[in-house]
Amino acid sequence: MATYVIDERDNQLGRSIVTDTDDLKSYYQDLDTFNAGALWTVANEIEPWEPTPMSDPTIWRFDDLRPHVLRSLDLVSAAEAGRRVVYLRNPRRKDVAACCGWLFSGLQAMRRGEGTPGHRHAASALRYIMEGKGAYTIVDGHKILLGARDFVLTPNGCWHDHGVTEDGEISIWQDGLDIPLANALEANSYEVYPDGAQKQLYPLNDSPYSYGAPGLMPINDSWQHGYSPLMRFSWDATYEGLNNFAKVTDGSPFDGVIMRYTNPHSGGHVMMTMGAHQQMLRPGEATKAHRHTGNVIYHVSKGQGYSVIGGIRFDWKEKDIFCVPAWTWHEHANLSASEDACLFSFNDFPVMEKLGFYREQPYLENDGHQPIIATR
Amino acid sequence: MATYVIDERDNQLGRSIVTDTDDLKSYYQDLDTFNAGALWTVANEIEPWEPTPMSDPTIWRFDDLRPHVLRSLDLVSAAEAGRRVVYLRNPRRKDVAACCGWLFSGLQAMRRGEGTPGHRHAASALRYIMEGKGAYTIVDGHKILLGARDFVLTPNGCWHDHGVTEDGEISIWQDGLDIPLANALEANSYEVYPDGAQKQLYPLNDSPYSYGAPGLMPINDSWQHGYSPLMRFSWDATYEGLNNFAKVTDGSPFDGVIMRYTNPHSGGHVMMTMGAHQQMLRPGEATKAHRHTGNVIYHVSKGQGYSVIGGIRFDWKEKDIFCVPAWTWHEHANLSASEDACLFSFNDFPVMEKLGFYREQPYLENDGHQPIIATR
Amino acid sequence: MATYVIDERDNQLGRSIVTDTDDLKSYYQDLDTFNAGALWTVANEIEPWEPTPMSDPTIWRFDDLRPHVLRSLDLVSAAEAGRRVVYLRNPRRKDVAACCGWLFSGLQAMRRGEGTPGHRHAASALRYIMEGKGAYTIVDGHKILLGARDFVLTPNGCWHDHGVTEDGEISIWQDGLDIPLANALEANSYEVYPDGAQKQLYPLNDSPYSYGAPGLMPINDSWQHGYSPLMRFSWDATYEGLNNFAKVTDGSPFDGVIMRYTNPHSGGHVMMTMGAHQQMLRPGEATKAHRHTGNVIYHVSKGQGYSVIGGIRFDWKEKDIFCVPAWTWHEHANLSASEDACLFSFNDFPVMEKLGFYREQPYLENDGHQPIIATR
Amino acid sequence: MATYVIDERDNQLGRSIVTDTDDLKSYYQDLDTFNAGALWTVANEIEPWEPTPMSDPTIWRFDDLRPHVLRSLDLVSAAEAGRRVVYLRNPRRKDVAACCGWLFSGLQAMRRGEGTPGHRHAASALRYIMEGKGAYTIVDGHKILLGARDFVLTPNGCWHDHGVTEDGEISIWQDGLDIPLANALEANSYEVYPDGAQKQLYPLNDSPYSYGAPGLMPINDSWQHGYSPLMRFSWDATYEGLNNFAKVTDGSPFDGVIMRYTNPHSGGHVMMTMGAHQQMLRPGEATKAHRHTGNVIYHVSKGQGYSVIGGIRFDWKEKDIFCVPAWTWHEHANLSASEDACLFSFNDFPVMEKLGFYREQPYLENDGHQPIIATR
Repeated sequence: MATYVIDERDNQLGRSIVTDTDDLKSYYQDLDTFNAGALWTVANEIEPWEPTPMSDPTIWRFDDLRPHVLRSLDLVSAAEAGRRVVYLRNPRRKDVAACCGWLFSGLQAMRRGEGTPGHRHAASALRYIMEGKGAYTIVDGHKILLGARDFVLTPNGCWHDHGVTEDGEISIWQDGLDIPLANALEANSYEVYPDGAQKQLYPLNDSPYSYGAPGLMPINDSWQHGYSPLMRFSWDATYEGLNNFAKVTDGSPFDGVIMRYTNPHSGGHVMMTMGAHQQMLRPGEATKAHRHTGNVIYHVSKGQGYSVIGGIRFDWKEKDIFCVPAWTWHEHANLSASEDACLFSFNDFPVMEKLGFYREQPYLENDGHQPIIATR
Repeated sequence: MATYVIDERDNQLGRSIVTDTDDLKSYYQDLDTFNAGALWTVANEIEPWEPTPMSDPTIWRFDDLRPHVLRSLDLVSAAEAGRRVVYLRNPRRKDVAACCGWLFSGLQAMRRGEGTPGHRHAASALRYIMEGKGAYTIVDGHKILLGARDFVLTPNGCWHDHGVTEDGEISIWQDGLDIPLANALEANSYEVYPDGAQKQLYPLNDSPYSYGAPGLMPINDSWQHGYSPLMRFSWDATYEGLNNFAKVTDGSPFDGVIMRYTNPHSGGHVMMTMGAHQQMLRPGEATKAHRHTGNVIYHVSKGQGYSVIGGIRFDWKEKDIFCVPAWTWHEHANLSASEDACLFSFNDFPVMEKLGFYREQPYLENDGHQPIIATR
Repeated sequence: MATYVIDERDNQLGRSIVTDTDDLKSYYQDLDTFNAGALWTVANEIEPWEPTPMSDPTIWRFDDLRPHVLRSLDLVSAAEAGRRVVYLRNPRRKDVAACCGWLFSGLQAMRRGEGTPGHRHAASALRYIMEGKGAYTIVDGHKILLGARDFVLTPNGCWHDHGVTEDGEISIWQDGLDIPLANALEANSYEVYPDGAQKQLYPLNDSPYSYGAPGLMPINDSWQHGYSPLMRFSWDATYEGLNNFAKVTDGSPFDGVIMRYTNPHSGGHVMMTMGAHQQMLRPGEATKAHRHTGNVIYHVSKGQGYSVIGGIRFDWKEKDIFCVPAWTWHEHANLSASEDACLFSFNDFPVMEKLGFYREQPYLENDGHQPIIATR
Repeated sequence: MATYVIDERDNQLGRSIVTDTDDLKSYYQDLDTFNAGALWTVANEIEPWEPTPMSDPTIWRFDDLRPHVLRSLDLVSAAEAGRRVVYLRNPRRKDVAACCGWLFSGLQAMRRGEGTPGHRHAASALRYIMEGKGAYTIVDGHKILLGARDFVLTPNGCWHDHGVTEDGEISIWQDGLDIPLANALEANSYEVYPDGAQKQLYPLNDSPYSYGAPGLMPINDSWQHGYSPLMRFSWDATYEGLNNFAKVTDGSPFDGVIMRYTNPHSGGHVMMTMGAHQQMLRPGEATKAHRHTGNVIYHVSKGQGYSVIGGIRFDWKEKDIFCVPAWTWHEHANLSASEDACLFSFNDFPVMEKLGFYREQPYLENDGHQPIIATR
């Protein structure tokens, strides 16, 4: 658990205010014999006043990472590596290989004609295409072609493998998974697909062609899964959707023009443990700060700007990745006076919402803007 | 109730097989005194072996109706008429002013610059635009512009009024309502909007601009209603959706390439009592027959072909309207070998499904095609 | 549809205020040729200002009916009659054999050792036991024993048959069904069980023994139906529940201490089209009037009192049955100063709620009490 | 994360099979500079073949703990301690103060007339009464009296405090909470009730009196929470329910006659993160082994027997507590040939189910029984 700092509020009735005595110390030793302890010795620590983040706000700039991601192409084969991924390691979450909270993220590079062996796991995964041509994913036999800034799902328990077509180009995409969460909840598991790569069992792109029309669904649909049957959300339709929405909304004070990727079958989150958004900061827009439970990993789709996260300013431009830990104040700004800036993000909000843990708070002081205490 | 024809199956244990005697006749008279009767005198009639339709298969051809619809423009004013509508009257449902089952339909004509007074009712309504320019609907203050073959909702309990803009042209659209159902269920009610036409309270087209992007939803959405927040389903997106789906589906044996209009918030039907579909019959396609509970009113969006309904062949072309009564065999055919034909339809399936009454059956004989006993 | 009385409110913009001319009359004839009509000629009638009931408030007193119900035992056999039921016919609903609205009700009598042939239908059914000993119902192979004032379900589509055990006594119960609704919605159908009476396929009373404990459910429960797996609601547990609830509630101003029978699997109504309540009027309690859409058929479980329905006072005592038509003011009173009075009732509220038609209104004048215009 | 043991299955395509070279080692150092790493260096560890438990099977015997629990009465006051709880510490989960997985448990003792200060937290809590008289809980102003083996909820976000009435006796109960989970998910928070103990705002026991009747619900119920409005599940009704169910079920091969405590409003789990069961092992019954994701903490309600958990035999009798870690084989046996044995248990199954992580497996070898490798 996070290190607890004693708070002056702890010195009141309703908190543990026991002063240890020799008798008590001896008592604690006796309890220890029976795999037991006295709650009041840990109560204030395990019941903090506020949600307590376990990650640091961090940025991963594409200019820094790109050469190293490309270098991996020469260092290991996709087959040997399983997946040739450079993963993003939060300074405070190295022990669980997490990017933020219980979320994993990494950058995967692949040459044309390459593919990963098929596999599946209890963890859910998503991908956001960064560069290249001819990338594809196969999910339970459904093959889906992917272009830049397309967002694709490979949900929990689905067989999946990825590759780049023979006529494609070296491609890089961001992976997002809840592997650390699945491990923390003692639920992760792994299977290798029997015969290398999956066969394509359905017509190409049948998922987006069946479920990707607005307000329409196949009539004989009998989808039973907890995740979305629409597995590719294309950038063109998404950007057009954001621009349309921008015409009729004032936007959120904290996020500008923001839309949630949804499961068209239910209107809910795209997967059972992870949600995703695309948001547009209009030219010159600077939002106000708020904080909420749940962790968010952002990917700059377009434009340049900065975010202030826990008082630290992070400047970003296209393809940079940064994270906002749980219950940490954050606000975003578009540095261009003429161009919009767009942020893709994914999160663990479905976990927070389903378990009753979602909570949100606006930053009320200083007209909603945090004092900047550092820049990175 | 529908007239019951005695069936030879009635002559068995498990049905009423009582032979009336003088004692029984006298008994029935006694029961009558107390507002009572003997079930066995009506049991076989009120418990038919099969679902029993109350409507006739009927077609309304646009070539026939159009002149009369336009004539109404000169005969009555939109204001005096409330709504200047020529309604479609099923031969067997005149007493309840229904087009088919408990569904109402009509054709409404409006000049440029005209509008209806605002009103609302417990019944739900929908509209399908047929011709003209500049048509619009205002639903609870949300103004929506409409083009040909756009499908728009004015759900139960919402204030609504319709009109044609000053720079528009004479417009005709089809109305669909569940007025007969709302009356049959003793639930209809009516209110006139206090000040004539509604004011536009929100940005123009905010419903389609907020909810009309595939797999995306406004983040702070707090929709609580039982009907869809997306109230206009545009023809262009619908036709593109059908064409995409056609690339990856074999289609339904009974309906070709068919999609259900959905509430993006829930994946369910667009309104609480009425659902809608758009379907494409591919060049030369002739479907097999099936039947189901629930009534359907079709509108030919595009192309020409015929439907065989209850053994009667109805030839149709663009803008024609026809109905398929409950539990009546029906099949459709596209007469063109090169062009697709599209059918819009609306139905009372939400009623059937929610109440546990939906049931479906394929026609198994004659390779799925009914013998044609008449043509109309 | 109900006969419409012209209302002075009809004379305003927003209603049809067209005056017929010779031209219009000729126009109407032309439309008639094409199975069409002018909406403004029927609009005010089919869009009434208020929900319009189709039934009369009516009472069926057990003292009147009992001798006739028992007489049926000698007049017809259970087997020949299918079900030996005296049904309750609302004066205004004879054409659809309904007791109130689209609800059917009747009294069924059976001798010891008798049983009905097994059958099933799209309509849902319920039973409320009035007198006798040894009554039972078999639902899809689940046999359930029934005592006085027990409430039992035989939901839509379930095989069912009823009887009285060999060691029982002549039994009378009230049946409630939605047969008229199923017919009106063109969805009713009927099947006779292949071999006479059903075999008992499960342990006796397995439904109440599995689902009848408060706040508990079998762990491996995989119930998929839209109706309750708990099919018998016993009087003892119900009456104890009402008495417990009475200790902690002020009660409803319109209904006293009232509880809804629920599907423990969902918390919803017990069946897809019909709900049920049990309510207690405390000694001396007289409730205030309200009205709502939906029809209710009451059965006096216990005590004596009166109800004022649409201004008519109906005095009742144990085993009497009366109905409250849709949108009709009603209030109830217990005539005893020392004993409670209990009313069982069933209704079509699930239909109203699911279709968006439920609406409710308190009677505000005269301290909530209707002037009494007649007594029956 | 749990320590990963290299598995021979790791040596195949589809797993990371990279051999480190000097180039790679240098590459890893470069990545480290940018808060990044190579996935293939940790992939096999963070993607284990099977769900991996983080706790040890452990038993806490009441005979051992009771004297120490009572001793706490003299050592600290309830007020100073906040809650005077001896908590149960899994040998492998000391760092998070958990009893098993992310679940907390402890034994709380209270004298007559004592009470805790009111407080609330994002974590959910439950209590199972072990001994004493006059125990009560107040949840958001609803006061509930508790007897031995009653099960009571104090859900997430509800103000709650506990005590023993002035005419009661020293009471001991087991607490169960998801504090470790709420902390792990960075969502826990704490508030002290402004004025010490809560006032009782509603009639005594209004929760069980309103929601504790089988198949009945208050009619005007407008419950909006994700947890059950029925907050006390009394032992008498539960034991009667189990006995009734035992008459009609064969029972589960793994658990005997087992029922799930449910939210009567939804049929779902009683709280958003924790579920609970009561199960009966019939005289002489010995179940077969299975395993599943999710952690379970058992409390012996009645009788004596043993459980084999991960190959270790734990003998138990009334009031003993033991835990079954995630994905650990377990089976139970009743040692009496004449008396039943009952086990109360609570778990984190709602977390597993909602997030798509629930999975279950029967033990197939040796007729379903594990070889016993140790006894504790």
